[in-house]
Amino acid sequence: MQKIIKAIKEAKSIIILTHLDPDGDAIGSMIAVYLALKGMGKKAEMFCRDAVPEMYEFLPGSGKVKKSVNKDKYDLAIALDCGDDKRVSNKIDLRAIAGTVINIDHHPDNTKFGDINMVEKLSSVAEIIYKLFVKMKIKITKDIAQCLYVGIMTDTGNFRYDYTTPETLDIAATLARAGAKISRIAMAVYETKTMSSVRILGAAMYRLESSESGKVAWTVLPKQLMDSLGAKSEDLTGLVDQLRAIKGVEVAILFREEDDGIKVNFRSKFTVNVSEIAQQLGGGGHIRASGAILQGNLDNVKEKVLNEVFKVIK
Amino acid sequence: MQKIIKAIKEAKSIIILTHLDPDGDAIGSMIAVYLALKGMGKKAEMFCRDAVPEMYEFLPGSGKVKKSVNKDKYDLAIALDCGDDKRVSNKIDLRAIAGTVINIDHHPDNTKFGDINMVEKLSSVAEIIYKLFVKMKIKITKDIAQCLYVGIMTDTGNFRYDYTTPETLDIAATLARAGAKISRIAMAVYETKTMSSVRILGAAMYRLESSESGKVAWTVLPKQLMDSLGAKSEDLTGLVDQLRAIKGVEVAILFREEDDGIKVNFRSKFTVNVSEIAQQLGGGGHIRASGAILQGNLDNVKEKVLNEVFKVIK
Repeated sequence: MQKIIKAIKEAKSIIILTHLDPDGDAIGSMIAVYLALKGMGKKAEMFCRDAVPEMYEFLPGSGKVKKSVNKDKYDLAIALDCGDDKRVSNKIDLRAIAGTVINIDHHPDNTKFGDINMVEKLSSVAEIIYKLFVKMKIKITKDIAQCLYVGIMTDTGNFRYDYTTPETLDIAATLARAGAKISRIAMAVYETKTMSSVRILGAAMYRLESSESGKVAWTVLPKQLMDSLGAKSEDLTGLVDQLRAIKGVEVAILFREEDDGIKVNFRSKFTVNVSEIAQQLGGGGHIRASGAILQGNLDNVKEKVLNEVFKVIK
Repeated sequence: MQKIIKAIKEAKSIIILTHLDPDGDAIGSMIAVYLALKGMGKKAEMFCRDAVPEMYEFLPGSGKVKKSVNKDKYDLAIALDCGDDKRVSNKIDLRAIAGTVINIDHHPDNTKFGDINMVEKLSSVAEIIYKLFVKMKIKITKDIAQCLYVGIMTDTGNFRYDYTTPETLDIAATLARAGAKISRIAMAVYETKTMSSVRILGAAMYRLESSESGKVAWTVLPKQLMDSLGAKSEDLTGLVDQLRAIKGVEVAILFREEDDGIKVNFRSKFTVNVSEIAQQLGGGGHIRASGAILQGNLDNVKEKVLNEVFKVIK
């Protein structure tokens, strides 16, 4: 941490970068660092390959995140929440754009790609940044507090996941005292579902089917139903995880009919390797989360997939 | 608070009661008080008209909650989380069963029905109980910590609603340090949905209706639908909050037909005082969360309620 503080103090121009497809911790941590550096009188810029998601646009400074990097060479690059440097963008060579690269992250498989690496097993990068700011005696302004609160809140699944420690809650309390608006932030981030996304999620849940034992649960979404509700594919984010969360369910499956075929998503809870099942069907993925795209009509695909699953668990 | 401490110290036999249709704060606070009183060597009993919801059965002592009251007269009755004494049960006269009645609650429209009343505008009754325990120098055991954590977590919608203050987070941190298992509790409470509860939630979301502006959203659950899905009232916990969470929605309403009438739950986002609306309809509650029970058929009740709401927002 001392090395990082020294490098920041010495640098005049700093670029802060975070990962593509950014989440609340990526955006919140990046803007917090940006605001702190500006407060110190540094020349600072922010980079993210993809746009700031709408739900984080309320954060002060979110409009200043850039999608391209200046050709200028920076004294310092600070990469946040990136397990390896390709997570920033495979088109950017960090060492080509900056004299020194700092890597601040909380993923256990981090590749230590920086000149200085701070990888801590904490709830979020925002929690690491908070500790860094305390060490650097940086004043936690209301704006910085909002950003760090968003990072901690989102990466802990709203204070629910493992790694949410008593200290995480202490920090959240301190940020709230510094001006982070707890309920406003939660509302801004979590309460942005549209009517049509609620209706399609409802339809999917209402149409839930299961094997006799209740160990396998699935739901089928025909294109016609999606269209009639004006639903988009992104409206279904998180649905198959919700199905896996049902009591007794070991394998959850979502079938949805799209233009390029029937998309099948698998999740498993404790025992089943759904990566193998997906591979049998021409797809792939992880042990507990996988997928495949099959051609044919919904009924046939469903029968074929369930047959494959029932070989392993019924 | 001093009066309450004195009354508890003097009492030998105490009955703790909470409201019908109990939630996490009702059950968690009641068991926490029970465990503390047992620790002090008191004769203590717990009463709730309705069963402890399955998701709270992991709490130590949940099996000791009784659905009927002994004919013995108690020295003291402590009612928790009840805005008025009918919330306990309309078949129980608190003054007939106890010498002194203590009323501990956080509903602003509490009727002050006790001989001693402690009504505080805090996130949860569990937060009030925590403060009481600190004042009484009661040791927060791991079991008590679990119970109070459940109360705070559930009544703040997992640290999201108004009234979640920095101090609420401090207390949660203290409870976690005393042994409350943050992620285990969240999983036990939020990830134990049954197939039928997922289906009924789905049906409710699929059947979502709204005013033309999208500011008022509601869903109607006829008893027949609930019965056909084998759904219970507790399966709908959190649903109306999800409806409020929809983009643009200012007021969300859940209508459900039950044996004793049509239950109507209101939630509001920023502007509308739904406590006033509920009062117009013979109910009560908070500014942002309230409810009423109306008699009549679903269609008539729906029309009557929407008329009342549309006077304020449309």
